Amino acid sequence: MADLRITVWNEGRHEQKDERVRRVYPDGIGGALAAALREVPAAVLRAARLDDPEQGLSEAALAETDVLVWWSHVAHAEVSDESARRVQNRVLDGMGLIVLHSACESKPFRFLMGTTGRLKWRDAGEREILWIVKPKHPIVQGLDGHFVIEREEMYGEYWDVPEPDELIFISSFAGGEVFRSGCCWTRGAGKIFYFRPGHESYPTYFHPQVRRVLCNAARWAAPVPGAPPAFGNRKTGWL
Amino acid sequence: MADLRITVWNEGRHEQKDERVRRVYPDGIGGALAAALREVPAAVLRAARLDDPEQGLSEAALAETDVLVWWSHVAHAEVSDESARRVQNRVLDGMGLIVLHSACESKPFRFLMGTTGRLKWRDAGEREILWIVKPKHPIVQGLDGHFVIEREEMYGEYWDVPEPDELIFISSFAGGEVFRSGCCWTRGAGKIFYFRPGHESYPTYFHPQVRRVLCNAARWAAPVPGAPPAFGNRKTGWL
Amino acid sequence: MADLRITVWNEGRHEQKDERVRRVYPDGIGGALAAALREVPAAVLRAARLDDPEQGLSEAALAETDVLVWWSHVAHAEVSDESARRVQNRVLDGMGLIVLHSACESKPFRFLMGTTGRLKWRDAGEREILWIVKPKHPIVQGLDGHFVIEREEMYGEYWDVPEPDELIFISSFAGGEVFRSGCCWTRGAGKIFYFRPGHESYPTYFHPQVRRVLCNAARWAAPVPGAPPAFGNRKTGWL
Amino acid sequence: MADLRITVWNEGRHEQKDERVRRVYPDGIGGALAAALREVPAAVLRAARLDDPEQGLSEAALAETDVLVWWSHVAHAEVSDESARRVQNRVLDGMGLIVLHSACESKPFRFLMGTTGRLKWRDAGEREILWIVKPKHPIVQGLDGHFVIEREEMYGEYWDVPEPDELIFISSFAGGEVFRSGCCWTRGAGKIFYFRPGHESYPTYFHPQVRRVLCNAARWAAPVPGAPPAFGNRKTGWL
Repeated sequence: MADLRITVWNEGRHEQKDERVRRVYPDGIGGALAAALREVPAAVLRAARLDDPEQGLSEAALAETDVLVWWSHVAHAEVSDESARRVQNRVLDGMGLIVLHSACESKPFRFLMGTTGRLKWRDAGEREILWIVKPKHPIVQGLDGHFVIEREEMYGEYWDVPEPDELIFISSFAGGEVFRSGCCWTRGAGKIFYFRPGHESYPTYFHPQVRRVLCNAARWAAPVPGAPPAFGNRKTGWL
Repeated sequence: MADLRITVWNEGRHEQKDERVRRVYPDGIGGALAAALREVPAAVLRAARLDDPEQGLSEAALAETDVLVWWSHVAHAEVSDESARRVQNRVLDGMGLIVLHSACESKPFRFLMGTTGRLKWRDAGEREILWIVKPKHPIVQGLDGHFVIEREEMYGEYWDVPEPDELIFISSFAGGEVFRSGCCWTRGAGKIFYFRPGHESYPTYFHPQVRRVLCNAARWAAPVPGAPPAFGNRKTGWL
Repeated sequence: MADLRITVWNEGRHEQKDERVRRVYPDGIGGALAAALREVPAAVLRAARLDDPEQGLSEAALAETDVLVWWSHVAHAEVSDESARRVQNRVLDGMGLIVLHSACESKPFRFLMGTTGRLKWRDAGEREILWIVKPKHPIVQGLDGHFVIEREEMYGEYWDVPEPDELIFISSFAGGEVFRSGCCWTRGAGKIFYFRPGHESYPTYFHPQVRRVLCNAARWAAPVPGAPPAFGNRKTGWL
Repeated sequence: MADLRITVWNEGRHEQKDERVRRVYPDGIGGALAAALREVPAAVLRAARLDDPEQGLSEAALAETDVLVWWSHVAHAEVSDESARRVQNRVLDGMGLIVLHSACESKPFRFLMGTTGRLKWRDAGEREILWIVKPKHPIVQGLDGHFVIEREEMYGEYWDVPEPDELIFISSFAGGEVFRSGCCWTRGAGKIFYFRPGHESYPTYFHPQVRRVLCNAARWAAPVPGAPPAFGNRKTGWL
């Protein structure tokens, strides 16, 4: 089995400023994601952060990434248009992208979707249930119908994204709202999966089924071998 | 504005046997649906029931129907294959079809979808909230984000239907389940809308927003004028 | 790698009656399909025909089939409703189905789609070009942009099927028509692929890229392991 | 019937530099488009060009536009990111957008789609046939199955766009290529229609069926009345 080179990109700001987040994620959110993704067969993991050179998103780093896992929240605006454009282009070129939680309003995701990614939200530590609406999809392998996260931030519809190519999960929250919590899109040669759970103040990324989804999604998003599509001038036809 | 000929087909069995249903729906479920649909501009309403001649689904009756509204539950098996096939063929020919609540397991809907329509359920009179996930769609005109039904039967995912062409509503229930409560499909020249609410023991079809959806959906499902597509042997091409 | 049990079901009538078809397909259309599918890794092949006991479609035979490949044309009407219903139910249960050429009007496909499958056609032995519109899809692995079949029957739009979940190929014909020649649907737990080429009077199933598509599609349509979705009464919720 | 304010935005460069284009379009491409769109009931037309102040795309001009029709080709790069972003935001806010021919590589369309819009092409004045694959859709009202343009530029698949929400037309070209020539997307509250024909050196925008499609599409893309979706913090839920 060929290596799957996964880069976990984490904004990394809550962990610096907020003692409570450090208590939940002693190795940072990125550390918890990397620990989860180590279960992916043949995974080769690399960490990247906003404060790295070139925001951790140099051409070279992206060229060596098969699947990029992205968590961001308070620093969306600090990601430069150039960085976001490089991520976008690399996805169109075939890199997989796993977009987590509040990163639905991040620049790379907005550039790829064309929409705002806005939604309703409430941070009250309430129960979330994720229901599978696409059984047999590779991303839900090993899961059984639904799973429960005891305390999470609520995200509610309407969520401003393009109609997903495949809708995998719908969440309900104790407060009554619903959300399309797992969605797949293809853009160019790249596969994109958005997965809702993961507020910084809850231990969501230690949840066994959440981790299972992350691993399944990384495998699913792996680039497909083969030549890229051809474009441009065709001198002659078949007549 | 041309007439819109709406036939409300109601199985009509609960009303005969169950005093509680009669108390909720003194004019029957079909009567409440017809009262709601009278608000559709230019609507011409007709009632039909399982116990009518030819099960209320003769070729002639269907030929004079632009939109068929269908409620059924305990008597799915009594609807003959021939009746269901006539409904299916008339939909393929352009008739709109509004499928309500437990009719997701009725024969006409199963024949059109190709799937079983099975789901999870619980009759505990619990709160349902319907969230709009396709704002600006004709079926949600005049509604605002979501609406609440205080007491309803629960339907839960996974629901065995083809991926909808358009997903309009997602419901959450007090018990935590979710459901794709408003879904659109096109089959042949006909438009189909499934709308979840409407258990026989709750006064759901008197709910103002439910009635608004019914009226919007009937308008949306109206047959589109124009010649049917051509099929068959083409003797020559353009070469 | 687990065995993939592929049953090639061929109506088998042209080969009995028509000397020209026998010349093109000395081992029958089913024989050519089986020869192609022998290239699928871990494939275990079985042949079935309309004239076999229970039309080659007994419960037992279907239960032991992972992927059913179906070719039919002149004898659509002879396939009993019961046989077609068994195929439909087994697909909903997880069996893959590859539907070939004129089988778009066969009963199993019509029962699963809910539509007529009708189209335009012309048998003039004209050039077909199949263009890939979903690069990187598993069904087009190893293909490069498009391929040409020198002589085929023409099928033209409008084709009466539900919107495909994924559109893989679009054909153009020398006469100027187009067709959605490769389409994917999921119904229940089963995956369905329709592939257009394969008129009985042309050696299409010896074409290397056609054979590649057949093999890719059989792999793609393989049943996904895991428990089936749960349905029925839920006594309690999460409140 | 309320006014439908249509702005025809034409890059306007070929007409300045190329005598042949002036001969085909004496009033410019924008002039021909406006003449076609005058047939839309209640249309109020306005012209805009790249060389206008603020590139013809000021906040004020867009705010007064219900449907923007966009033709561009040689000057894609001159449209500023700011102008393109204003168009994108106004579409998300509800404005309809009709994207014509080579404008599939323009900035506003690329910003809304997230993809490159690249394709194959050949300018050989060859026959294009547009086949309807979504009969009964509002955009094909009054058309009958297909129509022919005698001389056009060829565009061929693969075309790098997101899966369309609705596929309306597929073209075949005399040279054998195919193209998804009419596609619908929704982004935010706005409807987008891409329509392929319209190379500057052919009189395509005088073709009666092309004009019919333009008029139908402008009506289809009209903003839907009603409040925009709500976003942001919800203090309480329903518990």
